[in-house]
Amino acid sequence: MAPLKMEDLSEDRILHLVDQIKDWQSIVRSQTENTVSSYPVGVACFPTAVPRSRFDQAIKLQTVFNRLYCAVAEDDQWLYNVIRDIIPTDSLAKALWSVHEAVKKDGYVQSISLGLFRSDYMLHLDHDKEMESDDEDELSDASLKQVEMNTFSASGGSHADKVQVMHHYLARTGMYETSGVAFDSTSLATNRNIKSIGSSLALAHETYGHARSKGVKATAVLMIVQPNNFNIADERPIEYELWDRQVPVPTYRLEFGADVLQYTSLGQDRELLFQPPWLESGLEISVVYMRAGYEAHEYDDVGIKARIQLEQSTAIKCPSVLSHITTFKKVQQALSAPGTLEAFLPGHEGLHARKLACDLVQSMNYILKPSLEGGGHNVYGSDIPPYLSLTPEAQWSSYILMERIHPPLQSNLLMGPAVLDSGETVSELGIFGCCLWQSAKTADAQASEESDHRIQMLSNEVGGWTFKTKFADIDEMSVVKGFGHFDTPLLVDL
Amino acid sequence: MAPLKMEDLSEDRILHLVDQIKDWQSIVRSQTENTVSSYPVGVACFPTAVPRSRFDQAIKLQTVFNRLYCAVAEDDQWLYNVIRDIIPTDSLAKALWSVHEAVKKDGYVQSISLGLFRSDYMLHLDHDKEMESDDEDELSDASLKQVEMNTFSASGGSHADKVQVMHHYLARTGMYETSGVAFDSTSLATNRNIKSIGSSLALAHETYGHARSKGVKATAVLMIVQPNNFNIADERPIEYELWDRQVPVPTYRLEFGADVLQYTSLGQDRELLFQPPWLESGLEISVVYMRAGYEAHEYDDVGIKARIQLEQSTAIKCPSVLSHITTFKKVQQALSAPGTLEAFLPGHEGLHARKLACDLVQSMNYILKPSLEGGGHNVYGSDIPPYLSLTPEAQWSSYILMERIHPPLQSNLLMGPAVLDSGETVSELGIFGCCLWQSAKTADAQASEESDHRIQMLSNEVGGWTFKTKFADIDEMSVVKGFGHFDTPLLVDL
Repeated sequence: MAPLKMEDLSEDRILHLVDQIKDWQSIVRSQTENTVSSYPVGVACFPTAVPRSRFDQAIKLQTVFNRLYCAVAEDDQWLYNVIRDIIPTDSLAKALWSVHEAVKKDGYVQSISLGLFRSDYMLHLDHDKEMESDDEDELSDASLKQVEMNTFSASGGSHADKVQVMHHYLARTGMYETSGVAFDSTSLATNRNIKSIGSSLALAHETYGHARSKGVKATAVLMIVQPNNFNIADERPIEYELWDRQVPVPTYRLEFGADVLQYTSLGQDRELLFQPPWLESGLEISVVYMRAGYEAHEYDDVGIKARIQLEQSTAIKCPSVLSHITTFKKVQQALSAPGTLEAFLPGHEGLHARKLACDLVQSMNYILKPSLEGGGHNVYGSDIPPYLSLTPEAQWSSYILMERIHPPLQSNLLMGPAVLDSGETVSELGIFGCCLWQSAKTADAQASEESDHRIQMLSNEVGGWTFKTKFADIDEMSVVKGFGHFDTPLLVDL
Repeated sequence: MAPLKMEDLSEDRILHLVDQIKDWQSIVRSQTENTVSSYPVGVACFPTAVPRSRFDQAIKLQTVFNRLYCAVAEDDQWLYNVIRDIIPTDSLAKALWSVHEAVKKDGYVQSISLGLFRSDYMLHLDHDKEMESDDEDELSDASLKQVEMNTFSASGGSHADKVQVMHHYLARTGMYETSGVAFDSTSLATNRNIKSIGSSLALAHETYGHARSKGVKATAVLMIVQPNNFNIADERPIEYELWDRQVPVPTYRLEFGADVLQYTSLGQDRELLFQPPWLESGLEISVVYMRAGYEAHEYDDVGIKARIQLEQSTAIKCPSVLSHITTFKKVQQALSAPGTLEAFLPGHEGLHARKLACDLVQSMNYILKPSLEGGGHNVYGSDIPPYLSLTPEAQWSSYILMERIHPPLQSNLLMGPAVLDSGETVSELGIFGCCLWQSAKTADAQASEESDHRIQMLSNEVGGWTFKTKFADIDEMSVVKGFGHFDTPLLVDL
């Protein structure tokens, strides 16, 4: 072929090309105009012990949670009943519900949705005895508690994938051998997050099929991203994986908000058409992979219009606005009400798994504690909302809402972008769920093991996992803020 | 297995563990005490055109060059004659020759050596007409000229591997499509440098065989590195590749100099034993992979002792001190003398390849130009040394020694750690050669196609390639200094 000449490309395309290159050069990037500097993601220097039985339990439950949240996402009336109280005060809930209402008016034209969920757990010690660090007995007593279910295209998968490779490497080089005791590196958990997230997106892309719009030849996945994005290093490997598949899945990025309205449009049958100035030919979008649009501030008028446009289209959404809404803690709380789980997971085999899931979910209670010392005025679980409604708002700040989780403490050395320190730590295990489902309203009504009255599961898989560790005296697990450190579970038989 | 406790490891090991982790987090690192920040490696935004026929020619010649330099490395008398004039003034040559002499006194105990060579080329236009940028006719006229043969564990392989993946990705996303003309991404050259360098080291490791020293169970590759190393991002992928092979090859790093003397020792039969404080069990080193020890300042007394200790051992060296010495330009120059190549590549089939190689090598002439304007006093090639010997040294600085290469100019946009700029550029193509050979003095004397009177080639392969581009008005191609930018050849049929 002929030599390529830079002059043949528009300025727009060159600018975009430069942007593309920046991302190949960064870990977690902080960008300047012409280049990029990067800083490392925080990691735990030592893999943290997790009882193998608890880890296996979390894995085993994931497909049940997937099915549960898919079913919930297709019941907008139930969802509305759950979140209507927070709509006036929670601007994200308000924005998302307004998107749903706007789209519902003309009717949804895509009955299939993709979910890349992550269910987060902590280990929990029931007893009230003084906790001691690194106590094996404690670890063997610990049960698994669900902290939250994240149904919004959960992040952290790529980082967790790379960091477990690091820990496996360190283990194999003998760094974790202790005097006389060989380190069994097969005890380190493994994941293939990047491949499994890629596979799920590819399956949705294939399920969408050929371009429907006349004059458009190709389909592509569109990843909706935040501007000045700290998650680049977590997002990019998934894109590259999609391009690298045996049958490559074209994947492009687009910033949420104005760019969505500027570079996408709806075709005659509401196909989502993508025509940015840096591409020669327009594309029809098969899958909208949302990695932006999860924070309230993103939903100004333009943000709401952008989300409506995406949601109105024939593209398969990951997540749909309704499945996005299931991520509110209110929904988790409502699912713990007696009889609710059973309604969404109608009876056939799997009773045992359902029982286990119910145990987990029902344990997701909270304690409202007066932040003043003294004790005795704790309020528990579902008593909290009515209690608060009788309490003047001016007094709310004198209470702390605490999750009733007492994790075992383990000592570790954590290495963040600016700090290297040791201390007592606690960890959080996230299990990825990857699922593609069809609303039964339009789905082939044929009953199968994987379908119930609301949904038909087209695919229901456990993805990989994330595992994050923080100092015990820190409240937040945020990796971006430097508190959370990626880690690898060391599976122990106790 | 039981949970791992940080307290079970010594401070030494923890410090080393932290060092290991830093390297997983960096691209090109600049280190602080507790963490690491990194900056990107320079890249060309557009792949640069190279006539496919010239690229193929360079690939085809590599095994001939490999064999040539292996043969030269086994002829210490010839090498001495070539470099003896520079020993008094070139402190690196002096150091390396003193190492050879010291080791030769007691005799070498390993007859097998590994070479990871890189032969560098530029395109060259013979005619003197005014060069115009991006002229396809010029490109089709361009011939290939060898700039240098690097026989010291050549670097850049990992970067080049990753940057070509980037250019392939950019091509597939449509970034290089021009109006109406699809970009054929199969025209972009590919390489698997990391895998091929890893395979060569693994072959040498296997060839070494089991540990010979009593009480030592395992063998490992030892990568000798520079302190505060900018090449981390180029070295680490090779280590990880070795650990990741189906049969993992244990690979460790050690800084050149004092650490070599502190953490290695010679066994009874001169096995190279490695016992750093951060490893539980000692290892016997199968292959010494030198990525340090190529700069004169590294050879103080301790550096010389360290190199002697490595060289005296039974470990297979990459490179041996004699093959290291073949990297001097003096050796290249001597090889261009009539009849020399033929002496080192004795006649059997392969005459044609040898003819091609001779053409290349013989073109490696230089021009000595007065740096004052005026012209007419140029001195060419082998006339230069006698001319200089008749010229008072005080006047030498008034001359410039230039390689007679006039590369075609191509415009590009180069993106370095701190700069993004466009302009006329020139490129350099490096072809990796991976070879394992045995000195015929001790080798099974059985004649084969791959053996001659000096050496027996145990393996002779073309590795991948590097491709670097710089602005035409800059003299140096150094990537570390920010001048050279990794690039991918766009193979054009002209």
